[in-house]
Formats: sequence, structure tokens, C-alpha cells
Amino acid sequence: MLGLDPDPAALWPVASEGIASDADADPALDVAEAVRAHCGAVIDAAGGACVAVKPQLACFERLGAPGWAALAAVGDHARAAGLLVLADGKRGDVPVTAAAYAQALVGSTPSPFGEVKGLGADAFTANPLLGRDSLEPLIGAAAEAGAGCFLLVNTSNPGAADLQDIDAGGAPLHERVAALANEVGAAHVGECGLSLVGAVVGATRPERLARLRELMPRAIFLMPGVGAQGGSASALTPAFSPHPAAGLIAASRSIVGAHAERGGDPAAAAAAAAEELRALAWKSSAEQRG
Amino acid sequence: MLGLDPDPAALWPVASEGIASDADADPALDVAEAVRAHCGAVIDAAGGACVAVKPQLACFERLGAPGWAALAAVGDHARAAGLLVLADGKRGDVPVTAAAYAQALVGSTPSPFGEVKGLGADAFTANPLLGRDSLEPLIGAAAEAGAGCFLLVNTSNPGAADLQDIDAGGAPLHERVAALANEVGAAHVGECGLSLVGAVVGATRPERLARLRELMPRAIFLMPGVGAQGGSASALTPAFSPHPAAGLIAASRSIVGAHAERGGDPAAAAAAAAEELRALAWKSSAEQRG
Repeated sequence: MLGLDPDPAALWPVASEGIASDADADPALDVAEAVRAHCGAVIDAAGGACVAVKPQLACFERLGAPGWAALAAVGDHARAAGLLVLADGKRGDVPVTAAAYAQALVGSTPSPFGEVKGLGADAFTANPLLGRDSLEPLIGAAAEAGAGCFLLVNTSNPGAADLQDIDAGGAPLHERVAALANEVGAAHVGECGLSLVGAVVGATRPERLARLRELMPRAIFLMPGVGAQGGSASALTPAFSPHPAAGLIAASRSIVGAHAERGGDPAAAAAAAAEELRALAWKSSAEQRG
Repeated sequence: MLGLDPDPAALWPVASEGIASDADADPALDVAEAVRAHCGAVIDAAGGACVAVKPQLACFERLGAPGWAALAAVGDHARAAGLLVLADGKRGDVPVTAAAYAQALVGSTPSPFGEVKGLGADAFTANPLLGRDSLEPLIGAAAEAGAGCFLLVNTSNPGAADLQDIDAGGAPLHERVAALANEVGAAHVGECGLSLVGAVVGATRPERLARLRELMPRAIFLMPGVGAQGGSASALTPAFSPHPAAGLIAASRSIVGAHAERGGDPAAAAAAAAEELRALAWKSSAEQRG
């Protein structure tokens, strides 16, 4: 999965071509256009080795309304390239607000002026801290839209340990969250045996995968942190045990910024990095399945 | 604090006046304009009894780019009315992404085309599940901007109990989160004795306030759930113990929708409801202080 976390200060050179900066204009318009072009170029270069893109909503939100328009355009670009779109926003709120986030991500909003379409994402990430009733509107909307909902179970950052590893009645909190994810996902298992409720499980702590797989036998694992955050794809085999598609490896900076290490053209370097990661992921998946 | 959770299907009638719906156009533009007008009217009616507005980001996000533009405009309207703006988005992510959210909320984003300003919020809510390192960029940016950061400690929804009340080493998890909030806020205490790191503490469980106040003596408590969610303002006195401004009572539907119960003009009903809540909040604050 191709992470799109565009940093306006580190876009591919091709992204700024043809944008005539007007010093008096709102820079957000120019930057958002450059971000859109950058993400389009990244998708064109590396998308062939991926099943989905994962735009990081924060990186678009910080550009305001033009950024949100760029996000929608990047989603369209990815879909046109045959890729799924996973909106990575880690939303979580009380039920009435969770329902509004669901409308934004995978649904639409009724109004006297007509139905307002949301992002139309194929999947999204969500934060489970507010509990079951806060997840229901998100999961319900995902089910209706044929989309997926990935709950944060154990994130890839070092600080994750502060709360997620707290001892909660004999097991670390993240295992309790895993049990909750398994429970809320049980009613939404497809023919392939996988639930629409998946789990974000950092690739940075692969030694936990076997236990988490036990707790969530039907969840697709979304595994960020490969590459820039130090995780290695080859350690992730347990994720693939129930199904060849039960693990999704996410990488962004190690692909989009591959030219910094490899040299040469950003697009060629990204394509090569994505291809290598795909090969590794398939190997992990095949090893697990024998 | 005036919550702004605009539902396009329940806007004040004044909001749609003068919007000529064009069936072929993107309805998001019309709805966003109506939402902007609605929030402006609500601020004009009830703002005088409040210190701040709390726009619910989900309700704007679901309208896409026009919704984000409306959010910015509503913030400008509130500031012009002398109100602070608390962006309620409950964001939380790994450090590099948390920094991007901070840029979106209270900072700005450097780019080759110039600095892109964020929302310029005076405060925001954040989800602490990802731990200390995920909070540092948010708190650091808040400190730099002179803004506040309210961490979710114990939310107002019933499902909060699922994880927030789990026994975590002899205390419920939300008390561990409270200790974390107190710790990360300790370096940011102002002359008034209050920290820029506050806590979201649902008004629906007032019996917990005294203990949470013990754990977080310097935090401003943001207390949603009064009114529509069943909380009562008069039970909230412990929140005000350290300082008359140490408690912020948030209400949205009970003010914006007051005309449904009280009858009459929405603006007059909202003004009356907000005034009553202000009186109650002052009474709670004064009672605590003797």
C-alpha cells in the first residue's frame, strides 16, 4: 500500500512545473495544486506495484479547502489507476459525530439542496478509544458502502507503549483493543473469511503479530512503519496466515523518497522501491502459506 | 462554550435564505454556504453568553472542500465577535503526522510558494491513545501559538466505558490518561496556574470530577455532554476548584436546537438557553470558590 504523506517542502520537482506562483495570491492554491500533481506522479510511478493508496488526511488538511479538494482529486486519480483508496485520518468521536465522519469518508450527507457526497474512500482508519458505540456508525457505514474500517490496535510509534502497552487485567491494553476489534468485526465477515473491520498493527513490533493474529483471526492487518520507521517486511509473515490478502504493508517515505538513497529520477527510484517491497510482501505471504 | 455541529438537515431557516439552489451545481457549495450562514446566526444569537465556539470538524469535513472553507469562515466570524475558537477534531497520530495536524490547527506549513496558514484555532482537542511522542508536536505547536490542547481523558458517551474504564493496574485507564495529561502539561503552566494542556471530561459522569481534579490540578476541564447528552451543569462544581476559568461547559444541540423545546424564534430560544447555561456555570464556579 502506497502511503501519500505529501510534504510541500519535499515534492518531486515535476510537481511544481507549470505552476506560476503569484506572490499576491493565497499560496494554499499553488501548494495544493503542486501536492495534487506530486501525488499523481507518485501514483503513476509506483501504483503498479500496489493495491491501494493511503493518503494521510493531515497532510491535505493543513492546506485548508484547497488541500481537501486536492485530496478528492488524488483519490480520483488513484481509482482511475485501478487502486483502492484508504483514507488515513484515525478519526474517533462520540456516536453522533462518528456518524458525520462516516458521511465524510464513505457516505454522503442529506441536505435540502441534495445529497453531498463524501470522499468515497474504499477504507479508512479509526481510533477506538471512545469505545463500541463510537465505532458502530463507522462500521455500519463501511458495511453499507462495501468499505473497510481499520482500528488502531498497536501503532508503529515508540510512544505507543505509553498507553497501548499498559497492563489491563493481565494483558496489555492493545490486546484488549484487539479483542474489541475482533468482536465488532464478527458480524461483518465476508465469503473470503475476512472481516471488514481490520487492524492497524505497526510493522515495527513484528514479534507481536502471532498473538494479535490469534486474537483477530478474521482481521486484515494494515502494517505501517516498514522502511522509514524501521520495520522490515520479511518479519511480517504471521499476518498472512488466514489469507494471502490478510496483510497490507504500508510504506510511504521509503518509496516516495527512494531517490534520496538510490539516486536518479524520483519516479524510477519509487517504482523500483515499490517493486522490491511488493516482491518481499509476496514472499512473506507465500512463506506463511508454505 | 458554544458547540457548532451543523446538521444540513436541521439548519435555522435564516440560513437558506438567499441561496438559489441550482439543481445542476454541486450541492456541497450551497450546503456549505447555508452552514456558514447558520453558524454565523447562531454565534450572533448566543455568542454573547459564551467565551468560545467549538466547531465540530466532522460536520464541516463531510461537505468536502466547501465545508472546510465554511469552517475557516465560521472561525473568522467567531473571532470578529470576540470569541475564542476551539477546533474539535480529536486528532491523534504518529509524531510526523501529528506535526502536520498541528500545522493544520494552530500553525502553518512552509512551502516553496510561501507559508500556508492553518485554521488559526485558539485551542483544539486531541486523542492521546498514541502516547507521549504523538502529543509532543501538538503541545509544542500549541505552546508556540499561545493555544490550548485538550486531551480526551474521559468522554461523554456511554461506550467510553469499554476502554477508558478498563482496570489498568488498580486504576481505570482514564485515570492513567489523566496522569499522562498532567505530566505532559506540567512544563506549560501559565501565570494563572493553569496549563495549556487541558482535559476533555464528560459532563455525563460528574461523580468522577473530584478525582480527576486531584490527578490534574492544573488542567482546564472541557466538559461536553451538558443538555442533549444528559449532563447537568450544577453537578460540575469540582471542576472549578483551582480557578474560576478552570471549567468550560460545552453545549451545542441544547442551545442551537432550543426552539424545538421552547418554541418561538431559534435565535431568541438559543440566546435564552445560552444565558441560562452561563448563569448556571457561574453559579457552579462561584459555589466552588465559596
